[in-house]
Amino acid sequence: MIRPSVAALEPYVPGEQPKLKRIVKLNANENAYPPSPKIAEALAAFDPARLRLYPDPTFNRLRHLLARRYACKAEQIFVGNGSDEVLRLATDVFVRNAAHIGIFDPTYSLYPVLADIREAPLDVFPLPQSDEALCAFRFPDPRPDLFFLVNPNAPTGTMFGLEAVRALARTLAPSILIVDEAYTLFSGTDCMRLAFEEPNVLISRTFSKAWSLAGLRVGILVGDEALISNLYKVKDSYNVDVLAQTIAEAALSDPGWMEENCRKIVATRERFSAALAEKGWKVTPSHTNFVWCVPPPPLTGRAVLEKLRTRGILIRHFSAKPLERFVRITIGTDEQMDEILSLV
Amino acid sequence: MIRPSVAALEPYVPGEQPKLKRIVKLNANENAYPPSPKIAEALAAFDPARLRLYPDPTFNRLRHLLARRYACKAEQIFVGNGSDEVLRLATDVFVRNAAHIGIFDPTYSLYPVLADIREAPLDVFPLPQSDEALCAFRFPDPRPDLFFLVNPNAPTGTMFGLEAVRALARTLAPSILIVDEAYTLFSGTDCMRLAFEEPNVLISRTFSKAWSLAGLRVGILVGDEALISNLYKVKDSYNVDVLAQTIAEAALSDPGWMEENCRKIVATRERFSAALAEKGWKVTPSHTNFVWCVPPPPLTGRAVLEKLRTRGILIRHFSAKPLERFVRITIGTDEQMDEILSLV
Repeated sequence: MIRPSVAALEPYVPGEQPKLKRIVKLNANENAYPPSPKIAEALAAFDPARLRLYPDPTFNRLRHLLARRYACKAEQIFVGNGSDEVLRLATDVFVRNAAHIGIFDPTYSLYPVLADIREAPLDVFPLPQSDEALCAFRFPDPRPDLFFLVNPNAPTGTMFGLEAVRALARTLAPSILIVDEAYTLFSGTDCMRLAFEEPNVLISRTFSKAWSLAGLRVGILVGDEALISNLYKVKDSYNVDVLAQTIAEAALSDPGWMEENCRKIVATRERFSAALAEKGWKVTPSHTNFVWCVPPPPLTGRAVLEKLRTRGILIRHFSAKPLERFVRITIGTDEQMDEILSLV
Repeated sequence: MIRPSVAALEPYVPGEQPKLKRIVKLNANENAYPPSPKIAEALAAFDPARLRLYPDPTFNRLRHLLARRYACKAEQIFVGNGSDEVLRLATDVFVRNAAHIGIFDPTYSLYPVLADIREAPLDVFPLPQSDEALCAFRFPDPRPDLFFLVNPNAPTGTMFGLEAVRALARTLAPSILIVDEAYTLFSGTDCMRLAFEEPNVLISRTFSKAWSLAGLRVGILVGDEALISNLYKVKDSYNVDVLAQTIAEAALSDPGWMEENCRKIVATRERFSAALAEKGWKVTPSHTNFVWCVPPPPLTGRAVLEKLRTRGILIRHFSAKPLERFVRITIGTDEQMDEILSLV
């Protein structure tokens, strides 16, 4: 009695949620630092009696705060139960039946799962290795209805420049380009203006990474009002709970806290990357809160994963070729990264 | 660039979220009373630093508590971001392409929206008016892949007995029957055992109504493990945030609070229903926290809605025939219901 395409699905495997006693969790690109103290204040001020009422279904306070941040209209913003929900809803809205979804490889491993759920064939193209290569990229016919570009990219940590992403959008038009900017606040730059300048570009952001709120599930999509309005049609009525709205609002009241955490993480990332390179690792220059790197032979990615695991340190390793040479290590505190450096 | 079936969608319209100053909100079947004090304790004890980490993707503590409550295995329980998400995911899992979804009319107005999103034709049958009529009900061929039965029903407040629901399940088999028991804790009875006795029955429950946690978004689905496992494949990776898990767990530690609130609401409902009947209203006997009733002519449902609205009291009225004679009034506090009685 199961829809065949669902019966055949392999579920997306989230980064391990371990049950060890002392663990250092550097496998899911979570923020090394806690969220703003404004969140503790907002929680303390929150009246639990409010929980008896449904949340605002269109999260108006939150999207007006976001609109102010991005200098756009509230109607140009959609908020979801994590950017995972936002990206899934986008496949419902922008992918016609039997149309394709496009991605580069490697990319965020959720996209193939979303394509399977939507029963959309996936067009997979090798990740261009430079801005020039991205500018020269052309789609075969027919183009995918929807293309997901993660920028900065996961798991590589690399980043395309604004004009190269614009070129991709234009060669894709009128199909939709979603630029998943989950990690962009660690990069010092972003493509948000393309959401307002290119009619087929939507930008997704999340509170899970730079804002230290992965536990909450708040993601957003920004762009043309006529496109964004369709996501409101397919979402669950009350998709963002009242505490998530309240806490995201509190976080937005204190962007300085988030920015300072990003600065610390970037400083640690640069120091850690340099130290790994000195030890003979190949480290991909990162624009994110993780590094994508290859240990010096005979050390393998798998061996690094297992060695660190015995010490309670979790990192990410993808066993599929050609990614199996790499490990992806989330940037934790200086102390945590020093411990890794002492072990590899 | 919008998928045609989405462009054509009319979004589900949630009960109005008013911006008046003094309002009595009896239009969305929210609980009249706040949730357990255990929730304030859980919030006070919650360390905001935990928000930097992703929530448990399979909400293990919560589903083990639920499994204990329902005397089943944790694997027989799915938890969603509100029962809205649970019901939507069920259409992804159990409705094959081009297959139909079945409902009785009237029912919860979300189902036609879910069918539209899934592009599934909707088979609509008149609501049987008794257990005997339900037992005699037969589906035309081909049967729908999935049938949604709300029991007790919204918006009528009526309820079928266990054996009548079992008969429906058996005439539907092997297609799936979801019994949406959002309101069952106000009825004193339920069909949960059918989830364990009938292989094609799944029971959905919510924390939004009896548990006073509509703001949170926690809904569940209970039934055969092999059926339930498929919902885990199509859900967003981290669909229930850490605060929702924590607070639902706290609520489950204090079922007595919820039960006492239900008793109070049922007492108010019975008193209010009798008083309306004395005033010449036709009141459908309710098994929920709302009443479905027709004012005596020349008073119309619309007129009642508008009169109460001028006093800041919001109730629900559906303008489509033949429902337009009725109003649906959520049971609030005794004081709130007395105010309504003084006005109608």
